[in-house]
Amino acid sequence: MINYPHNKKSTQSVDQNLCKNSKRTVDFGRRGMSFEAQIIKANEYYLASNLAVIHKKPTPVQIVKVDYPSRSKATITEAYFKVPSTTDFNGVYKGIYLDFEAKETTNKTTFPLANIHAHQVQHIASVARQKGFAFLLVKFAKFDEIYLLMSDTLQKFWKEYEKGKRKSIKRDEFVAYGIQISNNTYPRVDYLKVIDQLLKKEGYLK
Amino acid sequence: MINYPHNKKSTQSVDQNLCKNSKRTVDFGRRGMSFEAQIIKANEYYLASNLAVIHKKPTPVQIVKVDYPSRSKATITEAYFKVPSTTDFNGVYKGIYLDFEAKETTNKTTFPLANIHAHQVQHIASVARQKGFAFLLVKFAKFDEIYLLMSDTLQKFWKEYEKGKRKSIKRDEFVAYGIQISNNTYPRVDYLKVIDQLLKKEGYLK
Repeated sequence: MINYPHNKKSTQSVDQNLCKNSKRTVDFGRRGMSFEAQIIKANEYYLASNLAVIHKKPTPVQIVKVDYPSRSKATITEAYFKVPSTTDFNGVYKGIYLDFEAKETTNKTTFPLANIHAHQVQHIASVARQKGFAFLLVKFAKFDEIYLLMSDTLQKFWKEYEKGKRKSIKRDEFVAYGIQISNNTYPRVDYLKVIDQLLKKEGYLK
Repeated sequence: MINYPHNKKSTQSVDQNLCKNSKRTVDFGRRGMSFEAQIIKANEYYLASNLAVIHKKPTPVQIVKVDYPSRSKATITEAYFKVPSTTDFNGVYKGIYLDFEAKETTNKTTFPLANIHAHQVQHIASVARQKGFAFLLVKFAKFDEIYLLMSDTLQKFWKEYEKGKRKSIKRDEFVAYGIQISNNTYPRVDYLKVIDQLLKKEGYLK
């Protein structure tokens, strides 16, 4: 019985509604699989191949009421979504702690920063301070392009966002300051290949 | 707004009911704070002091039905608990990936292995293979004693459990093969102090 990943449609459609102040930029229908599901698929492959142990965290839920209709099954009858205080994915690769948030946008030219929570950006900064490797993955669905943005660059953009100097990160900026993750045969989103190169370049791995 | 930790009483009492085949060994009333809550407190201290970034994962829940009574709040009206496939806690300390499960028992002489899920033990083994530092924390509530058991020892005991050769780990075995975490003033369960020593001893840190 596999519990992670839980990519139920109900959860996804609800998660979108959580971001009240953000545009509806997620498009789960495209290509048959959401970006999140693609990453989960890659993680399953990495785990089965003993390459890395990376999991998606469960959606944080505040449980209020639980019924016990029978001995065998507890039913949650009242619960609420909580704003996540950390990122969606974390795990370990060759002894290195990896931590990241993955977002998808249907916008053509920009990624609106309202799609990320302040807590998540702070969490990414804390992880980087502890010498973990933290980053943001953004998929521009219309172009089927994925970019990785490392913690330092994200923090710089986020400070400008908090000061009201910017509302989004341009696709051009991802091209200039990020690292593109090209599509692969299997797993389609083989982000670990890029991570490996970056970890060597940044001195995490030899 | 702090989302993690979510140590709501409702969640805890439900989590106990999840383990159908295990005795009710968790005693949340004792000392005013559960073992899990004590670890969460320690993690909050570590985070605030820039010592480590360790979080409890949200309880995995399968969401089936969601109501939208108003624009502002989505209410989950039907959901079920899922068996966790990973451990409760993970994070990063000085660049090292930490991953562990924390359990409390009111038994005096043994810790029943039915308290852990097979998936969790497999996860701990996978993490150790990726050079993460994975372990089990067990609190014997009656003695207010906490022991750390490293992955290798846990795997050895678990194999005997799967073969039907043992049902539990004796408190004496924790004394012999584990490392005790003594109580501290603040945070009370200062497990990171022991982790630091172990990481040096095991060659993870210099």
